Amino acid sequence: MSVRFLPFEIEINVESGTSMLDAIRKADLPLNTTCGGKGTCGECIVQILEGTYQSKPSAALPQKFLKKGFALACLTEVHDNLTVQLPQYQQLSIRTVVDSQFFEDNKDNISGIYEINPQIKIVNLKVPSPTLDDNYSDLKRLLREIQKKLKIKNVICDYSMLKKLAFAVREKQGQVNMVLFKTEDFWTLIDVKPNVEEKSFYGISCDIGTTTVALNLVDLKNGKIISTASDYNQQIKCGEDIISRINYSQKPGRLQELHELIIKTINNLIEKVTETSGISSSDIYFASISGNTTMTHLFLNLNPQYIREEPYVPTMNQVPIVLSRDLGLKTDHEGRVHCAPAVGSYVGGDITAGLLCTPILQSKEKISLFIDVGTNGELVVGNQEWLMTCACSAGSAFEGSGIKCGMPASEGAIERFKLIGNGGVDYKVISGSKPKGLCGSGLVDLLAELFIHGYLDRNGKFKPGKENPRIVEDENGIGFLVEKGKNSYWGNNILLTENDISTLIFSKGAVFSACSLLLKNVGLTFGDIDAVYIAGGFGRYLTIKNAIRIGLLPDIHQNKFHYLGNSSLLGAHLILLSEKNREIVNEIAEKMTYIELNMEPNYMIEYTGSLFLPHTDIGLFPSVKKELHP
Amino acid sequence: MSVRFLPFEIEINVESGTSMLDAIRKADLPLNTTCGGKGTCGECIVQILEGTYQSKPSAALPQKFLKKGFALACLTEVHDNLTVQLPQYQQLSIRTVVDSQFFEDNKDNISGIYEINPQIKIVNLKVPSPTLDDNYSDLKRLLREIQKKLKIKNVICDYSMLKKLAFAVREKQGQVNMVLFKTEDFWTLIDVKPNVEEKSFYGISCDIGTTTVALNLVDLKNGKIISTASDYNQQIKCGEDIISRINYSQKPGRLQELHELIIKTINNLIEKVTETSGISSSDIYFASISGNTTMTHLFLNLNPQYIREEPYVPTMNQVPIVLSRDLGLKTDHEGRVHCAPAVGSYVGGDITAGLLCTPILQSKEKISLFIDVGTNGELVVGNQEWLMTCACSAGSAFEGSGIKCGMPASEGAIERFKLIGNGGVDYKVISGSKPKGLCGSGLVDLLAELFIHGYLDRNGKFKPGKENPRIVEDENGIGFLVEKGKNSYWGNNILLTENDISTLIFSKGAVFSACSLLLKNVGLTFGDIDAVYIAGGFGRYLTIKNAIRIGLLPDIHQNKFHYLGNSSLLGAHLILLSEKNREIVNEIAEKMTYIELNMEPNYMIEYTGSLFLPHTDIGLFPSVKKELHP
Repeated sequence: MSVRFLPFEIEINVESGTSMLDAIRKADLPLNTTCGGKGTCGECIVQILEGTYQSKPSAALPQKFLKKGFALACLTEVHDNLTVQLPQYQQLSIRTVVDSQFFEDNKDNISGIYEINPQIKIVNLKVPSPTLDDNYSDLKRLLREIQKKLKIKNVICDYSMLKKLAFAVREKQGQVNMVLFKTEDFWTLIDVKPNVEEKSFYGISCDIGTTTVALNLVDLKNGKIISTASDYNQQIKCGEDIISRINYSQKPGRLQELHELIIKTINNLIEKVTETSGISSSDIYFASISGNTTMTHLFLNLNPQYIREEPYVPTMNQVPIVLSRDLGLKTDHEGRVHCAPAVGSYVGGDITAGLLCTPILQSKEKISLFIDVGTNGELVVGNQEWLMTCACSAGSAFEGSGIKCGMPASEGAIERFKLIGNGGVDYKVISGSKPKGLCGSGLVDLLAELFIHGYLDRNGKFKPGKENPRIVEDENGIGFLVEKGKNSYWGNNILLTENDISTLIFSKGAVFSACSLLLKNVGLTFGDIDAVYIAGGFGRYLTIKNAIRIGLLPDIHQNKFHYLGNSSLLGAHLILLSEKNREIVNEIAEKMTYIELNMEPNYMIEYTGSLFLPHTDIGLFPSVKKELHP
Repeated sequence: MSVRFLPFEIEINVESGTSMLDAIRKADLPLNTTCGGKGTCGECIVQILEGTYQSKPSAALPQKFLKKGFALACLTEVHDNLTVQLPQYQQLSIRTVVDSQFFEDNKDNISGIYEINPQIKIVNLKVPSPTLDDNYSDLKRLLREIQKKLKIKNVICDYSMLKKLAFAVREKQGQVNMVLFKTEDFWTLIDVKPNVEEKSFYGISCDIGTTTVALNLVDLKNGKIISTASDYNQQIKCGEDIISRINYSQKPGRLQELHELIIKTINNLIEKVTETSGISSSDIYFASISGNTTMTHLFLNLNPQYIREEPYVPTMNQVPIVLSRDLGLKTDHEGRVHCAPAVGSYVGGDITAGLLCTPILQSKEKISLFIDVGTNGELVVGNQEWLMTCACSAGSAFEGSGIKCGMPASEGAIERFKLIGNGGVDYKVISGSKPKGLCGSGLVDLLAELFIHGYLDRNGKFKPGKENPRIVEDENGIGFLVEKGKNSYWGNNILLTENDISTLIFSKGAVFSACSLLLKNVGLTFGDIDAVYIAGGFGRYLTIKNAIRIGLLPDIHQNKFHYLGNSSLLGAHLILLSEKNREIVNEIAEKMTYIELNMEPNYMIEYTGSLFLPHTDIGLFPSVKKELHP
């Protein structure tokens, strides 16, 4: 029997009668199960979209879900060719936290430039028909008009465009739309179509995260974001973090596989945004991509091997313009692709692009700190004159991965959380449905609330004496019951265990200790920082106060914090809209000095000290100390 | 039964028992037959390479040929799957008339530049291994070395080259060979390979003729021609001249077919020259192509439709650099292709390239006339300051096509001919074997000898009173027996008929009248011409005196004539070797003014007047007049 798993598009063959859980394991897919396949934890929910199957009922899955084709994988046998959706990985619907409005409001206060002047142009003009007296070639007559109308001389012509030329200049009495792409001082004619009217044309900006990929479809005439979509990076099945992806890529055919998976992920998103908006993908001529160095290598089908081998050297930092068709991207065949430049193996284009959205380059006096917490954490400190950067392995806990009740910031995620009295809770769910789990910002809130209200000690363990009806104990140990199964979307308990808390503390400790070391390295303290910009996969909101309470962010006055959301995507958007941002982002990349934390002698001391709530040295968190000991 | 015809690579299916002649006709292949399939003329010789067949013996084909698999198509039945070679179209072995030595001898006397400075470079250098202190990306370390060693800054990098980079800079301790291609002020890195030693790299120059294609494999380090090959343009089966090819291309799929046929022709030649020389085709990085405007369009897969529709406008005259892989050329995947620029629909890159080999641009005072007689005839008159050009439809008689005893200048062709006394002949055969027929130069000699010795009248008809044992009459009418069957290679009579003479006169008349009109147009006479340069498919030699005797060339002192052979190929070779020739050839193309002969009111008068030996107005040929009436 063949079983096809969505959204990964993986197909495997199994014997008839195999349990679905074994099939999922055979397909090497990520699926949590706590009870070990006994049908009690309710975590291995799947939805069978096509095919017939046999599934035993379970208390962990309400009857109404069974009717909708949901089933527990451990209680389901494969007896037919099936198409199975893993709902934990169903299509995301993250909205961009900051949209075009952000730029309108901040256009004078960002390092990039907010203007609609892309390095690609569409032009409508009329090419006069040839006569015996004016019998110049089609190309020459076209170039003459370009020079007349646009005053540009250095025009090179793509071969593929030549093939369309004779038809295009005759079909509508010579009225054509042309697309021109600028590289250095030259414009390349990349397309020509017969068309009477001025037409719009489109670009995509895309952030390739290790875990999720987000994409905007943008009208290049007015800079408006027409449609947005995001999804899991399909590479997840080959490893959750950068290092495991690089390892995966080292066997024959695997690099190609990873490359194809990210292209497929992006193409699916392009399909989604074009379908939604009724725009043809062949009207998309430019893609602005940002991603960490490994993601950029895999996107370009480049071997990432040396990124993880000392001395950690990527193939390139600045990426030349690549053709869509060389990558297999579903835009116009001759579309161009720009990738934001990296600083090194562990500080990539997502960071340089992200900095475009901050005012870090605006001042010589003010010092800014930029923190991006994704699957990896990257930090930048500096101003107009200097920039220092480092990276740390934060894990993807704040993106919802590796936490039993964690999930990305999509529909059904608790994004804000508060304890009410003894046993009450208040929370906000994205899209307002019943909760499925908690996204990063919800987890930060939950951990901070448990700590600040005295339920957790500084090691992140539940205090034995402190009681709350929601603190429960089962075979997995002690935990906090955010919501009971009957109130949750999937019908299973939403529970934060001590193990989950440990994972969160490892993540936050990695970020904070990197932050601390970076500042020490340039001889600064947190008191010297004028502004902190937070980016990353937390979700749409982040309660800064709670992030300080758990020791994720330094104890700086809250006014100095600015939450940016997906700044990598925003930066890619800025690069898409204005050619000048390409120069600025290259300047940013050139200016940054990278510090390899592993080489720092105090690294382990700093890290270990950060594995407490908020820190071993509570003196570093005076506002939290004051709250705990008023 | 399937029958595959070489060298055209056409395969058709026929009923068992079909005659080979019918099969050839079904395949729409060019094959002369005078007797109409009676087995007597011996013209429809084929060679069966694979498969069994039944063939009747014929007096027209000696027994020894039957044993070698030769047969007369009209007497052969197909009873098996066969592979059949048409010997009339067997692979050509034209040697370049003028070789590298020509340039050595004439380097200060040509419009182009003879130097080894191609727009493509190969460089061997060592990229230092990265260290923790020098951990720049692979690309940056490579670019740093390029700047150090070559002092070039503006380097762009091809995507395909990025893919090989990480491996290349590590495999041989960083020692690499790189290939750089110059466009405008930028160098593009198109390849990088691990290699310790300086390596050579290669280019091809190629003349795409309507009838034949000739190609040189050139070592780009020293400019030497390593190997040469030529063959029929496989497009022949779709029509013999430009107009019929354009017509053929107008049905769906046919343009693609013509494009693939020329690419296949060239790829076969590349295979031949690389096999001969033991060079890998992936070491060929640059192709310099010259051809008439229609051939260039078909080579590039561009619709040639408007070339033949008033106002006769091509898609482009100057062709941008194209990638080999976009055309399917069997060179390195990232190889670059340059096509010589055209002047218009009927004066193409073969002419502009050809002019590079003449001194036409060397002087402001001297006026040169350039005549290229191929399937089409093109003429140019001018000097450093002005160039005028026109084209005429000469037919391919001088390339051996449409003449019963005609053939290209390949093995077995009579290339020089003389009458000895009454009934004797003297001739020279290419490669010294028994003759198969006459190439262009031989036909010019034969026609001139018959005329000047009084066997032909001025209309090109045999004079009734003038006897010669070789003037014979059969069912095809009267003709001159160049060689009897027993002395010929194929065993058939080599006979020049009055019909053939008419065809030759039409061809020579078209060339001469165009020549005459062109000069009149600029207010010059033949007396004003300081030098005449002859190019075209005549063969290795052309007896200028005989060409004047028949009225093909104007009656100018023989010292002023220079025979160039395949100047289109020579010009492509010059462009391959030196970047500067690209600029010069563009300048030539820009400078030329094209005159449309069909628009000239005197065209028909001039043409009709030229359909005599040597001309109606014998006063135009004083030296011939003196010979005839001393």
